[in-house]
Amino acid sequence: MSKNIVKPSTLPGFMELLPKDQILFNKIKDTIRKTYESFGFIPIDTPLIERSEILLAKGGGETEKQIYRFTKGDTDMALRFDLTVPLARYVAQHFPNLTFPYRRYHIGKVYRGEKSQRGRFREFYQCDVDIIGNGKLSVVYDAEIPSIIYATFRNLGFEDFTVKINNRKVLNGFFASLNISSTVDVLRSIDKLEKIGDSGVRAELKELGLPESTVDKILSFIKIQGSDGEKLEALKALDITNEIFREGIEELETVIDYVKSFGVPEKNYMIDLTIARGLDYYTGTVYETFLDDYPEIGSVCSGGRYDNLAEFYTTQKLPGVGISIGLTRLFYQLNEAGLLEGDAPSTLTKVLVVPMDETCNEYSIKVANILREEGIVSEVHFEEAKVGKKLNYANKLDIPYVILIGEDEIRRQMVSLKDMKTGDQELITIEEAIKTVK
Amino acid sequence: MSKNIVKPSTLPGFMELLPKDQILFNKIKDTIRKTYESFGFIPIDTPLIERSEILLAKGGGETEKQIYRFTKGDTDMALRFDLTVPLARYVAQHFPNLTFPYRRYHIGKVYRGEKSQRGRFREFYQCDVDIIGNGKLSVVYDAEIPSIIYATFRNLGFEDFTVKINNRKVLNGFFASLNISSTVDVLRSIDKLEKIGDSGVRAELKELGLPESTVDKILSFIKIQGSDGEKLEALKALDITNEIFREGIEELETVIDYVKSFGVPEKNYMIDLTIARGLDYYTGTVYETFLDDYPEIGSVCSGGRYDNLAEFYTTQKLPGVGISIGLTRLFYQLNEAGLLEGDAPSTLTKVLVVPMDETCNEYSIKVANILREEGIVSEVHFEEAKVGKKLNYANKLDIPYVILIGEDEIRRQMVSLKDMKTGDQELITIEEAIKTVK
Repeated sequence: MSKNIVKPSTLPGFMELLPKDQILFNKIKDTIRKTYESFGFIPIDTPLIERSEILLAKGGGETEKQIYRFTKGDTDMALRFDLTVPLARYVAQHFPNLTFPYRRYHIGKVYRGEKSQRGRFREFYQCDVDIIGNGKLSVVYDAEIPSIIYATFRNLGFEDFTVKINNRKVLNGFFASLNISSTVDVLRSIDKLEKIGDSGVRAELKELGLPESTVDKILSFIKIQGSDGEKLEALKALDITNEIFREGIEELETVIDYVKSFGVPEKNYMIDLTIARGLDYYTGTVYETFLDDYPEIGSVCSGGRYDNLAEFYTTQKLPGVGISIGLTRLFYQLNEAGLLEGDAPSTLTKVLVVPMDETCNEYSIKVANILREEGIVSEVHFEEAKVGKKLNYANKLDIPYVILIGEDEIRRQMVSLKDMKTGDQELITIEEAIKTVK
Repeated sequence: MSKNIVKPSTLPGFMELLPKDQILFNKIKDTIRKTYESFGFIPIDTPLIERSEILLAKGGGETEKQIYRFTKGDTDMALRFDLTVPLARYVAQHFPNLTFPYRRYHIGKVYRGEKSQRGRFREFYQCDVDIIGNGKLSVVYDAEIPSIIYATFRNLGFEDFTVKINNRKVLNGFFASLNISSTVDVLRSIDKLEKIGDSGVRAELKELGLPESTVDKILSFIKIQGSDGEKLEALKALDITNEIFREGIEELETVIDYVKSFGVPEKNYMIDLTIARGLDYYTGTVYETFLDDYPEIGSVCSGGRYDNLAEFYTTQKLPGVGISIGLTRLFYQLNEAGLLEGDAPSTLTKVLVVPMDETCNEYSIKVANILREEGIVSEVHFEEAKVGKKLNYANKLDIPYVILIGEDEIRRQMVSLKDMKTGDQELITIEEAIKTVK
């Protein structure tokens, strides 16, 4: 039969993993989920497709260009580009059925038709937690967030990472005291300090039309050095009477104090006055997280406080604070940096049961069933093939143990357990085999 | 500020759950995943978007009408409508990097723009396992599948369900012996026996132009009664010499024999000669699973054996066998049938820690951290509010325990543990509280 063969391939910008990497990826995803759940966050799972009207309610720039939008019948719909807009819609829609403060986590795929380039993905997982208040939300929750970031990255096996904390009110108040109106543009420039350096930021600020003296003040402000305590003192010493500024310092101080109470070691967090989070969305505390030895990866977990989550969908005032991990990109970056090596297997199976021939199938099945009841992932290789080929299957998949079943094993009601690392093989009871494997 | 409020709503046909149901849904999804994994199936996670050319390679009828298809730039793409086509593409594409027999599970969302109606969803989860052979695949794997279905539904808490098993070769061979050429149409009609009854099937078969005597033979064939052994004997007694027919009986007999070896109780499986699985896709063993007391729900898990998984993407011959659970629909149906009631909570939190006032925050955080280290999901209610309101939060979310922290508790380094069901409250050490909660 001659057929047209379609070349099998995925679209550019869409990550797809082979078994070994997929198992690793899932392990990371599960760890994030478990950590989020341990803090009492409630799961949510919203449709990937929403009305375009919902997703584009805020509108603006990049979003409209990047969104996957289409019609079916009369309906104008699109794929979600983040998990925040669906959260806003969800909270507005189900408001009477939710209990506040509403703590939710969401791990799911989002879509952005970005320019295709290395390390950039058009489909990627975001792992978000948010705490949403009804009308108000205590600033202590802002301090809980770094402790969640800390627990997450510790559970992922990291030790050397820093949650950088700032407060947009400090920035906004400072700018107001300098009579700067184009705050968003200035924030965007400041955000790039790590990337484009002093001179780059200076050039950008000048382009905004700011006088030299103002640019000087901004640069010396965002470069205040010292311990967190010293930074707070230096901020206060600026003696700026702007209300927003004072409020920001107070919040920042409260957050920093509480982060310590939450048990986050001092080496894992710090005030960084250059963190602005370009988005005009944030209104108070902001966070970015960096791996100390891999700054080039950029922030691995970011977020902040916002005054009003769902203003486009409800008149309810819903302040909140949250973070997001871009898991697909993080996985890619960690893999590139060689941080995911190790002995990850290509399957979850711990024991491959190998019947020597067809007559051994029944006893082999029984053995696999017993192992499975003991919580040991196991499978039987039923394919007719030489034992060597079946052992090769175990080798290729990094299955640590093989149980061989022949006439002798059946007669004696025992099993031959082969350790695939050492090659050692012994004839033992099933109970003994279970003990060894466990 | 006056703003245009967009009414928050989801598209029709898209399921979205509130916390209680979402937690239940995830529990079911996790149980399916854990069961699939216990049999050594390897996870896969393919893009939701594929080239239309890939998804529509097979083409045909409903698929093309229902698919969500769109273009971005020059690319003609679409959302996957099942997990089988992506699997076929994956195996063809990554063939050299996979080890066969390749056992994979996939739990993910798929999209079909069906007519919107109650209980029908346009976005739904499928939970699939497949075992793919390279060139050949032992029929014993066909017998493993019912044991996986059995383990899955037992783990989900069901006891009274039946995996109905048939073999397409038996049907095809039988039809060939009757000189019926329009096998697919006949199979489609037979598949409807439960729905449209004897007379309905008879009418449909006549419409296909089959003579009365042939229709009689078909109806008496698909209504062969008795135990599995008796059915097999009755089939053999038909004395049909057609090769395919004999092969089918042999396979069916082997599968039925082995299903017993796999430890599936006799009450949970049976031969049903009316099971055809309309799709022309299946070539051997076929399965459908019914809840004995809820036949109206229809099949809750179906699948079968196919000769060639990826014929549109590779010249490799890849036979396989697999099943699928349509989880979203199943969840909806179980919910409608009242089978999901019980004491499902609205959060995963086991302990809410309530500081009496701000001065108690630090100790409260410490207590929550200790609980969390013990694996107890806990959160602190930081919002400034009366204790009654905080207890109400716990009540609304069905949190089983509240720990109250006031001056007294801090001074004595103890906690007041309140059982929210009984209302009992006692001042005890953290260790004692951990014991009680666990």
